[in-house]
Amino acid sequence: MEKVNINEKLSLFSDYWNPRIVGELNGQQVKLAKIKGEFVWHKHDNEDELFYVIKGILKIELRDKTVLLKENEFFIVSKGVEHRPVADEEVSILLFEPNTTLNTGNTIDAFTKNTLEKI
Amino acid sequence: MEKVNINEKLSLFSDYWNPRIVGELNGQQVKLAKIKGEFVWHKHDNEDELFYVIKGILKIELRDKTVLLKENEFFIVSKGVEHRPVADEEVSILLFEPNTTLNTGNTIDAFTKNTLEKI
Repeated sequence: MEKVNINEKLSLFSDYWNPRIVGELNGQQVKLAKIKGEFVWHKHDNEDELFYVIKGILKIELRDKTVLLKENEFFIVSKGVEHRPVADEEVSILLFEPNTTLNTGNTIDAFTKNTLEKI
Repeated sequence: MEKVNINEKLSLFSDYWNPRIVGELNGQQVKLAKIKGEFVWHKHDNEDELFYVIKGILKIELRDKTVLLKENEFFIVSKGVEHRPVADEEVSILLFEPNTTLNTGNTIDAFTKNTLEKI
């Protein structure tokens, strides 16, 4: 049981759309990711997903609206809801979701990461 | 589905040791709390508990060590582990834990909150 410093963990990687696992509890995982550009539209049939912005501005596109998230704001995408994260500039985010969650959900493409590194 | 601004939610209350629920997903809850002083020693038999510091410095006393948490640092207390949060000055924290979690765990005393407000 060691504490986690978010900025220290973020300094350990620089690639986009490749979440790292930084904590696990109750079958859930805490992940950190740096993102830039447009992700792929997808949904998670069985998992609600929390996006928390550490640094930057994140757009979460839904089919009926776009949610704009700034630092210290979070948004929960309910299971089954199609969404697409978009970052015009680099954004650092924290994700909180079940350990069964695949980053691209029901969409398998070049963004899909089947295994994630723990840091 | 609305976004949550942490600082806006924190501005809505000022009492200590009375967590508010600000999000729910996958049977887990996101809570915000302001704390100051010494809490009661307790443990959660069935729930891991995540403490994330938004503002201030939090001490989490364990039986064998004390963990010092600053802004943007978090610590996960595993189920069954006795702990006591201590804040010399006011601290704002985010908690992430199952929706079954009682704030004082196995210890029932004046700090115990059986129901929490959603804000």
